[in-house]
Amino acid sequence: MEVLSKNKIKWIRSLRLKKNRDAEKLFVVEGTKMVQEIIDQWPEAIECLVTSSNDFQFEGTIYHCDPSEMKAITSLKTPSSLLAVVKQPNPKAANSGLILALDGIQDPGNMGTIIRTADWFGVSEIICSIETVDIFNPKVIQSSMGSLFRVQCSYVNLVDYLENTELPIYGALMEGKELSNFDPIQRGILVMGNEGNGVSPEIIEKITHAVHIPGKGGAESLNVSVATGILLAHLTKK
Amino acid sequence: MEVLSKNKIKWIRSLRLKKNRDAEKLFVVEGTKMVQEIIDQWPEAIECLVTSSNDFQFEGTIYHCDPSEMKAITSLKTPSSLLAVVKQPNPKAANSGLILALDGIQDPGNMGTIIRTADWFGVSEIICSIETVDIFNPKVIQSSMGSLFRVQCSYVNLVDYLENTELPIYGALMEGKELSNFDPIQRGILVMGNEGNGVSPEIIEKITHAVHIPGKGGAESLNVSVATGILLAHLTKK
Repeated sequence: MEVLSKNKIKWIRSLRLKKNRDAEKLFVVEGTKMVQEIIDQWPEAIECLVTSSNDFQFEGTIYHCDPSEMKAITSLKTPSSLLAVVKQPNPKAANSGLILALDGIQDPGNMGTIIRTADWFGVSEIICSIETVDIFNPKVIQSSMGSLFRVQCSYVNLVDYLENTELPIYGALMEGKELSNFDPIQRGILVMGNEGNGVSPEIIEKITHAVHIPGKGGAESLNVSVATGILLAHLTKK
Repeated sequence: MEVLSKNKIKWIRSLRLKKNRDAEKLFVVEGTKMVQEIIDQWPEAIECLVTSSNDFQFEGTIYHCDPSEMKAITSLKTPSSLLAVVKQPNPKAANSGLILALDGIQDPGNMGTIIRTADWFGVSEIICSIETVDIFNPKVIQSSMGSLFRVQCSYVNLVDYLENTELPIYGALMEGKELSNFDPIQRGILVMGNEGNGVSPEIIEKITHAVHIPGKGGAESLNVSVATGILLAHLTKK
């Protein structure tokens, strides 16, 4: 085990910024459970580990630091004893029937939950508009729970992308038809909009099938990751 | 507009702790949009407002503070210019068919989202185990988006509660029968378990109908608020 230098601390901290993550094609994963999952399932993705524990074993680059240094590195309120610097995965999408398109999702917790939900329902491709939050944001990592390694996410000009597809384009819109009217999607794209503003006007124009989740209570809207789950549960049915 | 005294600042900060919120039957709401919703819909619930804006109008107790004082009060990273101290609501449940029971939900974001989702589907009663996160936690407030005023939430010994009901008890369990096999619930209880551990063993014993959301991808599980949404969308269908 090597000792963690000041320079390495600085380097890991630099990965909090998207531009540095993109330049190095790396990101940071914190927490024993998630790091252990990566060690078990994608060991080749690990650039190095950092631990404040004295007896952690790993065949690869591993740095030791004391808890106060961990506090300087972590982006968590309560640092874990284990952190990994990980190569950005680029999983290849299976030829799945349904592609999820995200139009400006901002909240990292929602983003991670959407990736995890897509993974659960076998959706292996997510297309994000440029304004959508970075999938390697630490909070996205936390809530995606490893699904990042199984779902292909790419950032594109979403208007152009939708203009150039021949697939039917489904979109979650308040004024859409009730979900129960729709059959499962064999091939198509499902667009989910931003938390506050919904789907943007230039994207709404591209939607060929507007879908609505009927409610009966008082809430003005559903959380976007919950709505994504309800739509995928129905539209990916066998 | 009155000036905010040091003592009032201390008092508002004290409401960060559940025991103080419970003793005073008050809680704090931050952010212009949510406070405005309460002013519009439940004005009688407002104990007082605090604003760092000079021209905010309100017929009731309103304190003015400068932005640095707001920073001392806020539990947000970036304080809003408007905060309300609000009386804890106790909405009466409509006689709805489905009651949601939460067995140790810990994450305040999940909790708020579950309340909002219940509200969307017309579920007006939530029974929480004692270990479940406090509904007046600031992050629950943020993600519940006002639904707290429409859904009755109570904290009980959940084992006792389930022992003393004659209603069918549905529960989200990995080993349950697929959701599509179930008809909408006319009258019943739906139990959702803790994020990491699921439903606790002594509660599993009480479940009469175990339900499972079929997946086909790689994710180990669904986020609990997403799972709640999928189950409610199906089980509250007309």
